[in-house]
Amino acid sequence: MNLPLPAGFRVAGLHCGIKDDPAVFDLSLFVSDRPASLAGVFTQNQVFGAPVALSRERVPSGSGRACLINSGNANACTGERGLEDARWTTAETAKLLNCPPEDVVVCSTGIIGHFLPREPLASGIPQAVENLGDSEESFENAARAMMTTDTFAKRSVRDVTIGGKPVRVSAAAKGAAMIGPNMATMLGLIMTDAQLTPDTTDAMLRHAVDRSFNCISVEGHTSTSDTVFLFANGAAENGPLNETDHGTLQTAINEVATEMAQAIIRDAEGADHFVTIDVCGARTRDEAFRMAKEIADSVLVKTAITGADPNWGRIISAAGYAGVELHDEDMTLQINGVEIYRDGVPTNYDEASLSNSMKENRDISIWLQLSHGEADVRFWTSDLTAEYVRLNSEYTT
Amino acid sequence: MNLPLPAGFRVAGLHCGIKDDPAVFDLSLFVSDRPASLAGVFTQNQVFGAPVALSRERVPSGSGRACLINSGNANACTGERGLEDARWTTAETAKLLNCPPEDVVVCSTGIIGHFLPREPLASGIPQAVENLGDSEESFENAARAMMTTDTFAKRSVRDVTIGGKPVRVSAAAKGAAMIGPNMATMLGLIMTDAQLTPDTTDAMLRHAVDRSFNCISVEGHTSTSDTVFLFANGAAENGPLNETDHGTLQTAINEVATEMAQAIIRDAEGADHFVTIDVCGARTRDEAFRMAKEIADSVLVKTAITGADPNWGRIISAAGYAGVELHDEDMTLQINGVEIYRDGVPTNYDEASLSNSMKENRDISIWLQLSHGEADVRFWTSDLTAEYVRLNSEYTT
Repeated sequence: MNLPLPAGFRVAGLHCGIKDDPAVFDLSLFVSDRPASLAGVFTQNQVFGAPVALSRERVPSGSGRACLINSGNANACTGERGLEDARWTTAETAKLLNCPPEDVVVCSTGIIGHFLPREPLASGIPQAVENLGDSEESFENAARAMMTTDTFAKRSVRDVTIGGKPVRVSAAAKGAAMIGPNMATMLGLIMTDAQLTPDTTDAMLRHAVDRSFNCISVEGHTSTSDTVFLFANGAAENGPLNETDHGTLQTAINEVATEMAQAIIRDAEGADHFVTIDVCGARTRDEAFRMAKEIADSVLVKTAITGADPNWGRIISAAGYAGVELHDEDMTLQINGVEIYRDGVPTNYDEASLSNSMKENRDISIWLQLSHGEADVRFWTSDLTAEYVRLNSEYTT
Repeated sequence: MNLPLPAGFRVAGLHCGIKDDPAVFDLSLFVSDRPASLAGVFTQNQVFGAPVALSRERVPSGSGRACLINSGNANACTGERGLEDARWTTAETAKLLNCPPEDVVVCSTGIIGHFLPREPLASGIPQAVENLGDSEESFENAARAMMTTDTFAKRSVRDVTIGGKPVRVSAAAKGAAMIGPNMATMLGLIMTDAQLTPDTTDAMLRHAVDRSFNCISVEGHTSTSDTVFLFANGAAENGPLNETDHGTLQTAINEVATEMAQAIIRDAEGADHFVTIDVCGARTRDEAFRMAKEIADSVLVKTAITGADPNWGRIISAAGYAGVELHDEDMTLQINGVEIYRDGVPTNYDEASLSNSMKENRDISIWLQLSHGEADVRFWTSDLTAEYVRLNSEYTT
């Protein structure tokens, strides 16, 4: 098995002309050769793109054949016309795949508030169907065509054995970066040839997303287009899952989702550091999550990390406004393994040496230990650099 | 009345040695010559400095004589010893003012997690008491000694007539900037010689703070030390307030509070633009507030403004994740008076000319009109520049 996709999946990626530069891909297609169990999770933003609205309608059927993704235009804030455009792209795709349009879901990522151009898609969609393949190159092209300001294509593959049969889980993702007037968005697509009911597909996707894509943040701005799909087409013919199989497959799905989520943070625009935040010993996972997210989203924490400055007051105070009942003495904090605050009292640590370790390592660990309970969360973020500001404030109109 | 303070107030500001540079002030004292009605509002952070803990204990009495403020050290995350240090500073001050320590409230602003040095304060407090005065210079010094990385001292004065008597409202404030390992904090102190009951003092302060200091944001990081006090010492002998007087005084208090809040944003570190965000036509003030705050805190909105880029999708999508039920067609958006999104549909506006107006004006207006109801909020923020990142990521340990 040198090919990168699960059995029964073919994919394509190409330039159709939504983006100006003919060298830059802008259209991906992911297809299962048979109806697959399908689950999807979407942005929680009240303002969401037409593709989110349409896919949200279609996912509850629990079954799908294909996902069409374009980059360069988010088709968001485009009103009724945007919805018609999204519907049209899935109809065009479905015609060529000989399936009902309801079996095609869709994602768009790029600038908000511009109408989707139909002309490039009218020729691009047939081309994508013609190019469908299961080679390394096809998968790379499909992952590449999802990119906006990503600097590398993001793919992940795991092989497991389920019910005695080889099963593969493959994922592609894009995000989280911006350029000019574009909007950060996060898209992910997971494919497996495992046999799963729609309900199990949905449960496994939510479990994985809660521990991966929902645990990353670049600047905390929820996009209009965030979407992750899981297609399970059953080509592996593994039969019903026993408990061990369920665990094995869930782990594989979690692993590809986490690898994609981390890749997004490693590719965060202008970032110098990759930051892992562990909040441990909280009352509930939700409380740990809220504290980790406030720490991750704090511009002050991010800029301190950019400067290799172990300015821990910023971390503790960010945890303090997460809406969690908290006292100073409940907290112990480590940065890169160095304890700097113990049970609410500053320790005598070597600031210069810790700062050096932050300067020399691209990977930073923040470990906040609470005395509240047993719940833990791991969260990933990037730092915030002057380069990030430059990239996101460039005059583009 | 050329003097800047209400009757019965004297103030001082000086260098006592908490900061290294002898040219930089670090200790302020504000004193009423008689017990004043006192109200205070404090940071909502669960992690708060010792001065916040102590002042919070004392404000409920409804009466106070003095407020001692030091800059250069926040006395936060300093455990039991920090609380003892704060208590000691108020005892030293009270001794010299011949009042109980309970009549003195206290604020500290600066680096988190370092113990307050007693030595400079042991000589500084008597010096401050000796320097107390009601001149322009005294007020300027007191406002200056509160500053951390502020570039100008922030003061405001309003004169009104209440019950036929002249009444003055004077305010000083500091914030919101950081340097090295310091933490952004916001402190404000409002003095009036109006005669007010403690309950009215408290109600007037909360009304003003909700419409001024609570409507600003630089990067959304709630500090450990935020505090605003209102002292009303009754020296104007204006008698009980009738409804008109109440309105007049509330307006004066709101005006000085708003002037201080705006001054903080105008002094925001590294900022190129001063941004006013109006959210109108919301169901409730709280919903309008949440949308305005998400727009203000979005790093993507801020960097777009830095680049004079009318990238309105970032504004609309930030409103979309404020937890308010919302549909695209409920929204109309103007930037600097130019309508770019009407009832959920993009308009044909002149991007280049709007971008020019954003480049040429330091003041930017964002106007989001909703179709939900009658509630409005006005909020102020700054943009986010590479200079801000440089200032907050400098290697300082």
